[in-house]
Amino acid sequence: MIVVMKPGSSQRQVDHVIELIEQLGLRSHVIVGTERTVIAALGEKRDGAKQALETGDGVEKVVPILAPYKMASTEVKKEPTCVSALNLKVGAGHIGVIAGPCSVESRDQIVQVAQAVKEAGATGLRGGAFKPRTSPYSFQGMKEKGLELLAAARAATGLAIVSEVMAPEHVPLLTRYVDVLQVGARNMQNYPLLEAVGESGKPVLLKRGPAATMDEFLLAAEYILKTGNTQVMMCERGIRTFEEHTRFTLPLATVPYLKQTTHLPVVVDPSHGTGKASLVAPMAVAAIAAGTDGLIVEVHPDPEKALSDGYQSLTPAAFLAMMADCRKVAQALGRRM
Amino acid sequence: MIVVMKPGSSQRQVDHVIELIEQLGLRSHVIVGTERTVIAALGEKRDGAKQALETGDGVEKVVPILAPYKMASTEVKKEPTCVSALNLKVGAGHIGVIAGPCSVESRDQIVQVAQAVKEAGATGLRGGAFKPRTSPYSFQGMKEKGLELLAAARAATGLAIVSEVMAPEHVPLLTRYVDVLQVGARNMQNYPLLEAVGESGKPVLLKRGPAATMDEFLLAAEYILKTGNTQVMMCERGIRTFEEHTRFTLPLATVPYLKQTTHLPVVVDPSHGTGKASLVAPMAVAAIAAGTDGLIVEVHPDPEKALSDGYQSLTPAAFLAMMADCRKVAQALGRRM
Amino acid sequence: MIVVMKPGSSQRQVDHVIELIEQLGLRSHVIVGTERTVIAALGEKRDGAKQALETGDGVEKVVPILAPYKMASTEVKKEPTCVSALNLKVGAGHIGVIAGPCSVESRDQIVQVAQAVKEAGATGLRGGAFKPRTSPYSFQGMKEKGLELLAAARAATGLAIVSEVMAPEHVPLLTRYVDVLQVGARNMQNYPLLEAVGESGKPVLLKRGPAATMDEFLLAAEYILKTGNTQVMMCERGIRTFEEHTRFTLPLATVPYLKQTTHLPVVVDPSHGTGKASLVAPMAVAAIAAGTDGLIVEVHPDPEKALSDGYQSLTPAAFLAMMADCRKVAQALGRRM
Amino acid sequence: MIVVMKPGSSQRQVDHVIELIEQLGLRSHVIVGTERTVIAALGEKRDGAKQALETGDGVEKVVPILAPYKMASTEVKKEPTCVSALNLKVGAGHIGVIAGPCSVESRDQIVQVAQAVKEAGATGLRGGAFKPRTSPYSFQGMKEKGLELLAAARAATGLAIVSEVMAPEHVPLLTRYVDVLQVGARNMQNYPLLEAVGESGKPVLLKRGPAATMDEFLLAAEYILKTGNTQVMMCERGIRTFEEHTRFTLPLATVPYLKQTTHLPVVVDPSHGTGKASLVAPMAVAAIAAGTDGLIVEVHPDPEKALSDGYQSLTPAAFLAMMADCRKVAQALGRRM
Repeated sequence: MIVVMKPGSSQRQVDHVIELIEQLGLRSHVIVGTERTVIAALGEKRDGAKQALETGDGVEKVVPILAPYKMASTEVKKEPTCVSALNLKVGAGHIGVIAGPCSVESRDQIVQVAQAVKEAGATGLRGGAFKPRTSPYSFQGMKEKGLELLAAARAATGLAIVSEVMAPEHVPLLTRYVDVLQVGARNMQNYPLLEAVGESGKPVLLKRGPAATMDEFLLAAEYILKTGNTQVMMCERGIRTFEEHTRFTLPLATVPYLKQTTHLPVVVDPSHGTGKASLVAPMAVAAIAAGTDGLIVEVHPDPEKALSDGYQSLTPAAFLAMMADCRKVAQALGRRM
Repeated sequence: MIVVMKPGSSQRQVDHVIELIEQLGLRSHVIVGTERTVIAALGEKRDGAKQALETGDGVEKVVPILAPYKMASTEVKKEPTCVSALNLKVGAGHIGVIAGPCSVESRDQIVQVAQAVKEAGATGLRGGAFKPRTSPYSFQGMKEKGLELLAAARAATGLAIVSEVMAPEHVPLLTRYVDVLQVGARNMQNYPLLEAVGESGKPVLLKRGPAATMDEFLLAAEYILKTGNTQVMMCERGIRTFEEHTRFTLPLATVPYLKQTTHLPVVVDPSHGTGKASLVAPMAVAAIAAGTDGLIVEVHPDPEKALSDGYQSLTPAAFLAMMADCRKVAQALGRRM
Repeated sequence: MIVVMKPGSSQRQVDHVIELIEQLGLRSHVIVGTERTVIAALGEKRDGAKQALETGDGVEKVVPILAPYKMASTEVKKEPTCVSALNLKVGAGHIGVIAGPCSVESRDQIVQVAQAVKEAGATGLRGGAFKPRTSPYSFQGMKEKGLELLAAARAATGLAIVSEVMAPEHVPLLTRYVDVLQVGARNMQNYPLLEAVGESGKPVLLKRGPAATMDEFLLAAEYILKTGNTQVMMCERGIRTFEEHTRFTLPLATVPYLKQTTHLPVVVDPSHGTGKASLVAPMAVAAIAAGTDGLIVEVHPDPEKALSDGYQSLTPAAFLAMMADCRKVAQALGRRM
Repeated sequence: MIVVMKPGSSQRQVDHVIELIEQLGLRSHVIVGTERTVIAALGEKRDGAKQALETGDGVEKVVPILAPYKMASTEVKKEPTCVSALNLKVGAGHIGVIAGPCSVESRDQIVQVAQAVKEAGATGLRGGAFKPRTSPYSFQGMKEKGLELLAAARAATGLAIVSEVMAPEHVPLLTRYVDVLQVGARNMQNYPLLEAVGESGKPVLLKRGPAATMDEFLLAAEYILKTGNTQVMMCERGIRTFEEHTRFTLPLATVPYLKQTTHLPVVVDPSHGTGKASLVAPMAVAAIAAGTDGLIVEVHPDPEKALSDGYQSLTPAAFLAMMADCRKVAQALGRRM
């Protein structure tokens, strides 16, 4: 950490900061510059140190030097992590595609989609049974009945089931039915939930919150990793910005940034990331080109009749075309898919 | 709802949309304009209708006309709601001030702050016992022990206790100790939690998520109201923007906007909203001038030693000065405080 | 336009809005819904009509139906526009790549880069002679001397020269030396400049402002098109968001969105869009996959010595590798490059 | 500046950075920490140094220590600056209010508004003659005829005239008619314009760009100050965020932040900052409470008939009420108004 003193700070103030640094168990190192004095605080990072120093008299700001996360970092583990469940493999050279409807609506719907996306090359099936909805008046999902239908679709196709869990107390139930627990964007900083999914031992798909920085996103992963569960996929699904022609803004630079920063695999969700069916395929193909380890895409046999997110769902035919383009690009770049 | 057709849409497409509208139990009304055809869908709002129509062939966009929330709206209840707990009264002409440390750290700390903020005019005491922290390596709060200390501070001062609850399963425990349950910004869309705090029957302080629109914020309140609990305070605590000189951007226009839109009282948090102690008092005074019903402010006897958020905490002396200015402004504008 | 009345608006207020609509030369059409009355205003769009109606007594909001731009729209011209200058061709099936240093620094530098990027497949050379710099203490460019060096680089390579113009009074000078006038992101809404570059008759590269919506971006293009100059490239170079791990956030969904909305070609700038050399190539390749018509990339023979933007500049070797990957992806998707 | 090396950087890389620092005329100071090596670069700040170092091999990031602006800083000039023109005084204890229509539309309109706002206590008259409009199809202002009418309004009332200038070549014309040159938000980084208004010697009202950070805003002021013109007002008029219930987000924390950072006076524009007439007065009063030195407010005798911005204009009666509340708050806080 670097403590920057205000211009004209007194020797007494500098001494006080040195004392604070030493109380924190760190070593101090003073550098007197032309216009400012700065004090380096050296040693193993201590949480709380930054804010303790920030309140010091005469301190202008404190600049952290080290990343705040550890276990997620490539500095700690250089080899990429592969997350796998049944035939779904994501990371470490594998590109995995998860597809399916926003919500499970009926046995026919989910089995039909599952077969279609499997034929197109997906190895994971998404489908919401417990649905977090902005409005309390919206369809909230089929709950356990939906989980049973997902399990039926797995039995019919062998696809790994990915479904969202909304509360720690639901984790045991979901764990019985699904292969990958999804933590939704609204719950990225729901820490009791992160701990509960971590402790379940199941692979986790962690979605980025729409206002989360990369450090916050990686620290959310760190909550899961800290339980000993290392099967975590980082899912970019768009951030909230001033843009209004798309539902969210999908920043694909997240992909190469995370590939350089963490060993965890990166998955892109072009459905929520754009919110418009006509933009999903181009962004899915672009994500492959940018180096993503996986995709999660909404597909519905009849988007017009979908109980949620129909406007951003691909038809099975459109998904098939998207997959063909993704495969071409992956192969052109020497990647397996 | 207004369905806007694409230019050059065919009669068949228009007929199909009319059919969809009627299937949804709404009446349709076609208007043929110079360049576009638009179709109004009339009747009681049906959730899901918008997205069903958006996927219709030839549809360019669907424009909702009605607000998506009901019970929070001034259209449903014109008289302002007063939320009260012990001597804390917020709304319907009452300005209530809640103050205290970010985290409960010790009996001395919390009782000392409680007495100081009470003398300055606060009627609520804030203090975190269960702390949602961005990093798993940060201090996570004293948990139940912290709640006991808060209760002790209430016994000593009569202040109403406001403390954050992070998970539905903690609600019963918190309910035994505190007077107002706080739902933090990270949990604004944690729906099981919203339902649980609603059902507790306790007053709720609902913080705006840093990326939440006003409609989303009001719909989160609607989740609580729908349980029959009408004691909800809407707390503006800053949004995430590109600004970097403050921790968040505090948009005070939220105050008059919500006063026109909802009967629920509005509370402003200038501590998280700015993240810098030197900006807290000016923004607190400005919030009073903008018409807020309440304030929630971080105060710590020794910010340098605080285990969290010290850099944005006021000393008791600074809080006393802030309260004096707030009172002057309230009185100048004919408001009680 | 759809005028939405407040709930409980009176007949007198409705009549007044009808009168306003007719004064504007539009036809009105009243629809009485379950909870609101809405009034459609039909006829050729009149600027100013929206805001006149918004101030009407009893009006809650006015919803525009038509896009505010015309000449840029695919509704007016369906065939894609190809912008060309020397061998640089962008749009209508052509992918054009413009590369070069942020600033022209010396004859050796610019000629050396020009030869390198030409060999790698670029057909345009970028290089700033008049530099808009955030700080008045930064290098402001070589001005006319820089233009002479750009012309020398063109003479040596045949590349089309793309350079930024900062003020209407500089347009005649730039026009003598360069092949494409660039309007920078800071000047996207500098209307006298847009008119001046339009009237020059030269092709224009129009950069999106970092806070501009798509409608504002297209309306800026409309200022140029209105002069009769149709040679306009729309350049996405990143928007300002809360993200801090990249210089800007690069929203590649702009590419398919604009391809559906306008006939003008789209160019992506992954250098400013990320601000980090290590992220440029993945985003360039992703832009090709997303369907961009062109790229503009910063390349410097010795980024460490660059007078500006070195940290986001590729070396000639890195650019060569990037171009190879772009070409592979373009070919895989059946596009010429 | 602090150069942070990547973990595991080699001695050769460290030596190379030291060499780069010395080539830049700075002194280096190496600190070997537990996990990283950091190198301080000491000496008078050199623009370009940061980016030269950022490209160094093995460098992770470069952290600037000093603010990038100088002449605007309270470090250089501690006493607050008062900007004055006729009876308009802003800063150094004076609160000045500028009011008037978005656009000058006719002699009657402008003189009538001028008299009304003067009676309410304004000492400046705003009115656009050259209007930057998002759409080329919108009313672009009365140009020189508008300036003549503004001069007539000044003759009738003694109010100082504030009007926007859009291009360097218009500066001489505007300078003949107006007392304060306004640089609009779209032109905050139009550097030739900043230099031209600086050299005019006239007081300048500089509006913050909707995506500008505080450093960028202060550096734009620095462009003007560097010409020797110190009469610069910093105008906060709202930033672009994801919020959609207001036209822009008005971050009033700008006021206390700038009061601590610069000696230049701060002016708040609650009209553009909210975009809704019903929110203007509460935000104006809040701005006074937050410590602003001035306000600029849109007032129109008949907002329904305004050629621009009617929806955010106050009637003269509403402005009078707003001024009364502002005065009460100013007096309560011991400020002259």
